Amino acid sequence: MLSVRPRLLVNVGEPAGIGPDICLAIAKRQAATAVALVADPAVLAARAATLGEPAPDFRILDWQQPFASDAEPGVAVLPITFPSPDSLGVPDPANASTLLDGLRRANELVRRGAADALVTAPVQKSAILDAGIAFSGHTEYLAELNAATRPVMMLVSGGLRVALATTHLPLRAVPDAITEQSLATVIDVLQSDLGRRYGLERPRIAVCGLNPHAGEGGHLGHEDDRIIAPAIAAAQSRGIDAFGPVPADTAFTPAVGHIDVVLAMYHDQGLPVIKHAGFGSAVNVTLGLPVIRTSVDHGTALTLAGTGDADPASLFAAMDEAAKLVLHAR
Amino acid sequence: MLSVRPRLLVNVGEPAGIGPDICLAIAKRQAATAVALVADPAVLAARAATLGEPAPDFRILDWQQPFASDAEPGVAVLPITFPSPDSLGVPDPANASTLLDGLRRANELVRRGAADALVTAPVQKSAILDAGIAFSGHTEYLAELNAATRPVMMLVSGGLRVALATTHLPLRAVPDAITEQSLATVIDVLQSDLGRRYGLERPRIAVCGLNPHAGEGGHLGHEDDRIIAPAIAAAQSRGIDAFGPVPADTAFTPAVGHIDVVLAMYHDQGLPVIKHAGFGSAVNVTLGLPVIRTSVDHGTALTLAGTGDADPASLFAAMDEAAKLVLHAR
Repeated sequence: MLSVRPRLLVNVGEPAGIGPDICLAIAKRQAATAVALVADPAVLAARAATLGEPAPDFRILDWQQPFASDAEPGVAVLPITFPSPDSLGVPDPANASTLLDGLRRANELVRRGAADALVTAPVQKSAILDAGIAFSGHTEYLAELNAATRPVMMLVSGGLRVALATTHLPLRAVPDAITEQSLATVIDVLQSDLGRRYGLERPRIAVCGLNPHAGEGGHLGHEDDRIIAPAIAAAQSRGIDAFGPVPADTAFTPAVGHIDVVLAMYHDQGLPVIKHAGFGSAVNVTLGLPVIRTSVDHGTALTLAGTGDADPASLFAAMDEAAKLVLHAR
Repeated sequence: MLSVRPRLLVNVGEPAGIGPDICLAIAKRQAATAVALVADPAVLAARAATLGEPAPDFRILDWQQPFASDAEPGVAVLPITFPSPDSLGVPDPANASTLLDGLRRANELVRRGAADALVTAPVQKSAILDAGIAFSGHTEYLAELNAATRPVMMLVSGGLRVALATTHLPLRAVPDAITEQSLATVIDVLQSDLGRRYGLERPRIAVCGLNPHAGEGGHLGHEDDRIIAPAIAAAQSRGIDAFGPVPADTAFTPAVGHIDVVLAMYHDQGLPVIKHAGFGSAVNVTLGLPVIRTSVDHGTALTLAGTGDADPASLFAAMDEAAKLVLHAR
């Protein structure tokens, strides 16, 4: 029997940051989902004490069977044990491998259907790198776990969706990272996953130019005409409703007409708009994975950890988006 | 005797585009300013006919004395004569030198105090280049006319101001165009002109990083730490209230705190946000010039010329901003 309630695994992320704070807030929220935090109970208890809150009374679950088939609503914990749980505000690289291992196990549970979706609080990339682990990002790590060759990062807020053709690269490396082949893959993922996850059978995709004014006919660069335009034409010949290259400063205005998603060529071309438009409510959705995964749109905010000023709105929005995608997929 | 009403020169720009359409709309607007269009009366008459409107009844002014000291409100014309006035929708490079000459003369009038500010409708860069004239942009052309070494393009909409450290460059050329020296000049222009033009004696300037996450401690590029951070420190040592480098996707959110302006490093890092936030009402203000100059935030929109669908809102906003700056400067 299929569980009616979406069963979400929420990874608490870097224990030194605001992940524990915002995850503690989940328990105070009425929700129609069944939630299991992937967390160290000792970290949660310590953070609650720092915040002056009562010790959380979470059920501790079994990794072998996290949810019953009639999963109860509310919040439970899938336990992990950090070697350095008392790291408030100061990430300890000693925790990195435990953190990533929890993420790996959570991903595995969703893959084999023991849970419906993965929601992630932020990790601290520098702490993972300092532990000597090659790590280019949360999204990229999940792609590797799932043998997904092309994860696509998409931010969602209100009616606005922004996907990225490249993610965490130095600006200098962006132009050469955009090829007809890489764009074909990203556009194909948008086509298939906006259908599969959002019910948009033939999504209308506005593809941004790389250069200002989409190169202005070659006066401001040639990639728009030589790489992006052919990639769009090829997608159209595969039946995909993509168009462009659209100047990025037009793509987010009514002048672009009705669209389902903007495909920005790089991080700072697309994310400042959606963070401005939907601060605190934007959700990061990873497309191109076999699992449903959403994430907060903010970082670890180390200086806010334990202060009571961390805002769980983005985590709640990420959980709601995940639940929506789960229900849609049924 | 100083004229009480701001006296605005409005350059109609590319005659094949929507400049004539939106400038004709000025006459229908109640305004407390005295306006002279720099325009070919034949183009205005032809466009009015295309739009099915009565022929405009503009006063034709004398370039030697465009405004009386008690300038009347309403709209008049400072005449120029295009060799190819019938170019609706298809820019003719034959008009380029006349267009630029009108702009030059208008700028000269403002410089010698015969008018108070210059407002510009869009030009078609490709048509000017096709005429064999070296031209990298409207703003850059005005800077050259005024021997201004560092014009600063700033977009304004509502309470949001975004200035650009680089403007119309291929993305590939951006990283090397940003130096400590170029940033020092731009930041100094913001400090002086936000004071002089907007009465912000010590503006608070959020300086964006170049790379995503402002380089994330060197993991995503080094320019943020090696060029931008030292430029900010140097500005602070000159008493300027600049801070950063701020990740661009934080700079436009409440998390950045109270600021007067965001300094984006390049075109598509800053403009998509303000065009999204203020579409149709964003104004382009050029700082670093001896004259007050504002501009629309859109292009020539060739396919809309003569259709009746061109929206004059951005032109009106540019005129209002110019009038505000004129009154402030008195």
